[in-house]
Amino acid sequence: MTLILSNADVGQLLTMPDCIEALEQAYVELADGRGVTRTRSDTITPTVRDDALYSLKSMDGVVPGLGVGAVRINSDIITWPKVGNNFRRVKVPAAPNQRYTGLVLLFSTETGEPLAIFPDGVLQRMRVGATNGLGIKYMARQDARTIGILGSGWQAGTQLMAACAVRTIESIRCFSPNKENREKFAAEMTETLGVEVIPVAQTEDAITDVDIVMCSTNTVDAVFFERWMQPGMHVSSIKRPEIEPAAILKADRVVVHTHDGKPIHTLSRGLELPENQENKGWQVASEIDFKSLPTLPELIAGRLAGRQGDSEITCFLNNLGLGYQFAAAGSVVYRRAKEQGIGVDLPTDWFTEDVHP
Amino acid sequence: MTLILSNADVGQLLTMPDCIEALEQAYVELADGRGVTRTRSDTITPTVRDDALYSLKSMDGVVPGLGVGAVRINSDIITWPKVGNNFRRVKVPAAPNQRYTGLVLLFSTETGEPLAIFPDGVLQRMRVGATNGLGIKYMARQDARTIGILGSGWQAGTQLMAACAVRTIESIRCFSPNKENREKFAAEMTETLGVEVIPVAQTEDAITDVDIVMCSTNTVDAVFFERWMQPGMHVSSIKRPEIEPAAILKADRVVVHTHDGKPIHTLSRGLELPENQENKGWQVASEIDFKSLPTLPELIAGRLAGRQGDSEITCFLNNLGLGYQFAAAGSVVYRRAKEQGIGVDLPTDWFTEDVHP
Repeated sequence: MTLILSNADVGQLLTMPDCIEALEQAYVELADGRGVTRTRSDTITPTVRDDALYSLKSMDGVVPGLGVGAVRINSDIITWPKVGNNFRRVKVPAAPNQRYTGLVLLFSTETGEPLAIFPDGVLQRMRVGATNGLGIKYMARQDARTIGILGSGWQAGTQLMAACAVRTIESIRCFSPNKENREKFAAEMTETLGVEVIPVAQTEDAITDVDIVMCSTNTVDAVFFERWMQPGMHVSSIKRPEIEPAAILKADRVVVHTHDGKPIHTLSRGLELPENQENKGWQVASEIDFKSLPTLPELIAGRLAGRQGDSEITCFLNNLGLGYQFAAAGSVVYRRAKEQGIGVDLPTDWFTEDVHP
Repeated sequence: MTLILSNADVGQLLTMPDCIEALEQAYVELADGRGVTRTRSDTITPTVRDDALYSLKSMDGVVPGLGVGAVRINSDIITWPKVGNNFRRVKVPAAPNQRYTGLVLLFSTETGEPLAIFPDGVLQRMRVGATNGLGIKYMARQDARTIGILGSGWQAGTQLMAACAVRTIESIRCFSPNKENREKFAAEMTETLGVEVIPVAQTEDAITDVDIVMCSTNTVDAVFFERWMQPGMHVSSIKRPEIEPAAILKADRVVVHTHDGKPIHTLSRGLELPENQENKGWQVASEIDFKSLPTLPELIAGRLAGRQGDSEITCFLNNLGLGYQFAAAGSVVYRRAKEQGIGVDLPTDWFTEDVHP
């Protein structure tokens, strides 16, 4: 049978420790070169709306050790409203019932069959969280107890869940420019984590004297600066522009997620994307040669040294996502769903064929 | 609702004239640069069997004018048994009920939603046939009446269907080395086309004095040679090695399907693919600079001249498939399925989400 799962199912099935463990194993295989990830591609054309574009995005990855391959697909209607001086990339929920279209298809490397199909949303933030969690596990001080987080959005929750899964965290402070957002987030995460999350009104109040700084924003400009770096600190980022280049250069040890290339954009002739966060992100960090920095999979596989001593400043940059992560985390979702009998079973014959294609 | 269709449904819904018409329209848009196709990628790793590899292949395309994007995915267990002096690429039907895994996902460029999911097998051969049919429509003599076809396999039937859809064909001769295969094929196609298909025991008996030669083989070596070319002939191929380079160079007018690049193979470290048909195909035709030859979309869009006079020898090389073709032909399948109420309706909510991914 081929399993159809919802985001609610995925959220129930995939715990952060499981997700971290699967990615950890998969990254060793990626560092060994046995696991394979395929650079993301975005195919972009006009849609019926003049103020929007259609984007068909796909990325693949195969983790032989976990017996799975995955294709993640996003089929989006995208607009770029101007917010302040920048264009912000905003997806329109144009599918029926005002929904978005993002899918993960999980395949068996033993039989080729489709094992499961499910939306990408919950997995997407879990794998980002788990990746930065692995950065903390392998780079932060063993006795790290305090976190300052910048951001209170969709990604911030899983960032904190991941940090708490790999270190004994006792105190968290959260800054976000919107008072209501940060207070709501702090209350929710205090409940979820069983660790007090304190909302603060200034960045400095969040990051002064903490062991770990987590940037988890949607920003197009730097939000963390060199002057705030302190000995022993671990600084973590989910988006290129978040940390100013001078701060990155000042760290004693910097590790990036991947050397995988910039996503391959193929656009209809004459189309130009409005300047967007992502492009600006690549531009902003141009003084950093990401390809020369070691990667998280290499670190996990023991090919390079982690933190040397308690006073080093370490920095992990989650510079780009990989289709590979969806295969690794998806394998846990599938295994747990089978164990717990969750999901809708459809005949696998619906998604296979008897003709040699 | 999102439609689930079978190969049988696709075969019933998609007629060759419809498929040709959809591709014709889509190719104009591709030549204009509004339609976009994404180069195929193959991600290849070990599988549990030592004598096989796992391959996750994907290709995308978006045809804004038809309102659809498509992702085609193949999840294959592949072996390379040695046949004579060559390794033949053979997919293993390892999915439950001894089946293969090949899927097309069709999306709306207006809403992003998944419109339909169906196996790729029938569409795969229909789009190859339709493409070579368009080669005939735009390049063969208007009064072409006779065909010699080399090959009697899976692709050969749709090649003939396409030829008969664009020209008034009165006589067909078929050569294939295996007597039983060619006789069975000839009997079946005579029935299907309403045109007599005569099986012959020598290549020369099939191709002498015909108006159109169609190569439709699985060969790794040339099967059609310069010495057989005659004034006024149109020669058509579905695979690079079929026509010897000297014959291609002798044609007055040569058109290729696409300038799209060689598929991007990403393999596990240390893996090497056995020499296979495809690779050999690229190597064999290295004396031909495919990128310098005009393409079928350019020809259809009127950007270059077609046949000039009845005595020219024309040649169409279907050098590489495109994800784009699956979007174009898939749009017809979907439209006809909705009109005729065919397929299994699943809730679109199963394949969409309410979180911004």
